Amino acid sequence: MTHPSLLPQHRQFLAELFPGTDCLTTPEEMLVFESDASRLAGIPLAVVRPRNEEQITELLRWAHTERMPLYPRARATNVVGLCVPDRPGVVVSTLCMNRVLEIHADDFVAVVQPGVVTGDLQKQVEAQGLFYPPDPASLGISTIGGNVATCAGGMRAVKYGVTREWVLGCRVVLPGGKAITCGGRNHKNVVGLDLTRLMVGSEGTLGIMTDITLKLMPLPEATASLMAGFSSLEQAMAAVRRVFRAGILPAALEFMGQEVLDCLAQLGTVPWPQDGTVQAVLLFRLDGSRAALAADLQRLRAALDDTAQNRPAWQEQGLGAQEEEPLWEIRRLINPASFRVAPNKISDDVTVPRGSLLPALTGIRAISGHCGLTILTFGHVGDGNIHVNIMHDAARGDEKQRAGQAKLAVMELILSLGGTLSGEHGIGLTKAPYVHRQLGEEERRLMRDIKSAFDPHGILNPGKAF
Amino acid sequence: MTHPSLLPQHRQFLAELFPGTDCLTTPEEMLVFESDASRLAGIPLAVVRPRNEEQITELLRWAHTERMPLYPRARATNVVGLCVPDRPGVVVSTLCMNRVLEIHADDFVAVVQPGVVTGDLQKQVEAQGLFYPPDPASLGISTIGGNVATCAGGMRAVKYGVTREWVLGCRVVLPGGKAITCGGRNHKNVVGLDLTRLMVGSEGTLGIMTDITLKLMPLPEATASLMAGFSSLEQAMAAVRRVFRAGILPAALEFMGQEVLDCLAQLGTVPWPQDGTVQAVLLFRLDGSRAALAADLQRLRAALDDTAQNRPAWQEQGLGAQEEEPLWEIRRLINPASFRVAPNKISDDVTVPRGSLLPALTGIRAISGHCGLTILTFGHVGDGNIHVNIMHDAARGDEKQRAGQAKLAVMELILSLGGTLSGEHGIGLTKAPYVHRQLGEEERRLMRDIKSAFDPHGILNPGKAF
Repeated sequence: MTHPSLLPQHRQFLAELFPGTDCLTTPEEMLVFESDASRLAGIPLAVVRPRNEEQITELLRWAHTERMPLYPRARATNVVGLCVPDRPGVVVSTLCMNRVLEIHADDFVAVVQPGVVTGDLQKQVEAQGLFYPPDPASLGISTIGGNVATCAGGMRAVKYGVTREWVLGCRVVLPGGKAITCGGRNHKNVVGLDLTRLMVGSEGTLGIMTDITLKLMPLPEATASLMAGFSSLEQAMAAVRRVFRAGILPAALEFMGQEVLDCLAQLGTVPWPQDGTVQAVLLFRLDGSRAALAADLQRLRAALDDTAQNRPAWQEQGLGAQEEEPLWEIRRLINPASFRVAPNKISDDVTVPRGSLLPALTGIRAISGHCGLTILTFGHVGDGNIHVNIMHDAARGDEKQRAGQAKLAVMELILSLGGTLSGEHGIGLTKAPYVHRQLGEEERRLMRDIKSAFDPHGILNPGKAF
Repeated sequence: MTHPSLLPQHRQFLAELFPGTDCLTTPEEMLVFESDASRLAGIPLAVVRPRNEEQITELLRWAHTERMPLYPRARATNVVGLCVPDRPGVVVSTLCMNRVLEIHADDFVAVVQPGVVTGDLQKQVEAQGLFYPPDPASLGISTIGGNVATCAGGMRAVKYGVTREWVLGCRVVLPGGKAITCGGRNHKNVVGLDLTRLMVGSEGTLGIMTDITLKLMPLPEATASLMAGFSSLEQAMAAVRRVFRAGILPAALEFMGQEVLDCLAQLGTVPWPQDGTVQAVLLFRLDGSRAALAADLQRLRAALDDTAQNRPAWQEQGLGAQEEEPLWEIRRLINPASFRVAPNKISDDVTVPRGSLLPALTGIRAISGHCGLTILTFGHVGDGNIHVNIMHDAARGDEKQRAGQAKLAVMELILSLGGTLSGEHGIGLTKAPYVHRQLGEEERRLMRDIKSAFDPHGILNPGKAF
């Protein structure tokens, strides 16, 4: 059953359940809900903004009976079209459910509604000496609900893992209106199948979360950062290996390729020498107690400098947030700087086994040469997670087409190296046509059957993910 | 369809697929496969020992068609009857699949067959400067396959998480003989529903794993330990809180209650004073670089000693494996020492939200008084995971019955505190009758439906888990 438009009784039901501006139906009001950071768009039949679980329960009971597609979303910062209502249906914004319900310093948990902005929660827990490590680049604007639905990663994943590792439980309303409690607030729990982690990364296809219990840890006392420039990609990767071999696990370990360094230099002053001696940059962050950090920073430098030949061409360090900030500001400038190269980009976040970073990066450079487009590579070296920006001018000649070809070539390369189509962004709409290249028929059959156990009529975020 | 005995064609099939002593059918040969560490027992129709995936594939195709229950097991160290063939069926021992297929120092992964003993793998990876943190108490004898099937925990979980956090992927053969590849060797991967973590902790009910890919990390350079005795349970718990508030995350944090200390003193010399000043003991382990550890140990002592009033009644520290060993040896003596109290025990591993440890421990002490039996409590404070040993003499009066009542009372107490029936051991047979007290009907319906997607005829480890 598809619904090209809402019937009068549908309108009435939604308007009664979501009074006033909590139900939007005019094109002007709904404009912002048509799309997400993918810039793809659909046209919602209506947008509703629940404020409590009861409304979500009623909505899911109704949608299940009416076979009405629902598109849950929070800040919609995802870049793969995960929130796009590309078939007629109702968009469900969880942004009015944005309360931190509890921060418990002795249980080391936070219980939050899905619409809480991740960075806001982090500030609140840090004020109590607690720490929620996952730090997707969007943390200042994206929400815990969205982070859980996509299993968001981030720079600290190399040491602390991704969102999955920090979700202890969640409350979920299923199509039909029944609610389940997955997990709880225990740090260890092995009772039954792991429904909690099944929800994590399920891209809004299984149920709508109404609260989420997160694990917290003690806030490390201090951090320190070190940026090091190397004369080649190979030198940089060899340095990463020496650091790990020395038993050092950084809290973050970022990489910037030569094309990115050129870009950043065009935007403004950069700290590394502009004489060509620096062709790749690594950015480390360490955390721990203040006294221990001083010792660890020395050890990191020793691992980097092991011989005169291997020594970084340039390095700069910062101890404590204030001193570190300028180094991390450079990392954050990559996105704005990238548009100096070309007005459009295809952004990807492929991941390879850690040891295959060098062949992946050199392979991508070859694809760049072949298609005649600049491809920026940077990302989370510690996880093998590479952000790939294929820069092009969609208005010029066949650049758009060549960019698309480059994307496919990168995907083939990554899969040939045993990599994965997505380390962080997810599948959504844009990668859905390629999932079969990575997942076998039986794996996908199981995923569909599991989906059916939660959502037998397929009303939740149809056409996405798998 | 049940099989009270094997038909001749069944015997023939099994004998051909598993030549020689890889198929056992006499009571004498099968004796050891009747039970597990729960000491419950069933009678297998046959025991088979596959050596490769092809045999497992054929076995699962046959068992699916014949509706023949299969009971996968490795070292069967679990205490909840997880491996017991309590209905007629075939036991599948994975112990002949015990090869470490690969340790990749640059990818930071190990690929192993399910029968590899966890401690053996740890030694092998540590020889290469790598680290696999999960450390269930059974690690010297239990296997990776069993650890994954039960989501084994351990002492290092407070810092490094449980087995779940270290499984990147696995290969699984399903009933019917189709095989799936879950996850892979990428440290970040968000393509499709998380089948990998669904397998973790599934207690052998979904499929039989043929290989498992584990995440590794750099081996911390050194460790240090500190044991501290307190004048009361309350003082010990307050000290735990001060340590966490100082931003210290120990690699392990163990607790021993007064009854345990008495037990250990009966067994032999203990390091703490015997004048009654020590009523609870905490055992911390820190890890990191050698120089950083010295600083961190000082910081730990400062957090413990913050005022004269709070200072531990006694403490002793060890820097490096050799010095630490005597402290950890005491921890390992709890089990043998416990039998000085009484010849029988009911062993449980309930878990509560971290902040509820004190009410849980005092509540258990009250239950002990009420039922007139010694109850030992010790465990992983950092996770809220308490090992509860209800000591009794089953041959004396109604002690066995009272022990059973105490177990139920502990369960009620734990659930009333928002805890979980199992933090590490799992459900198996022994806790299966109580699962409905923790999980709702809809959660269990979903688990059954997911189980059906993997195993439509319910041949894998029937009657267990959920």
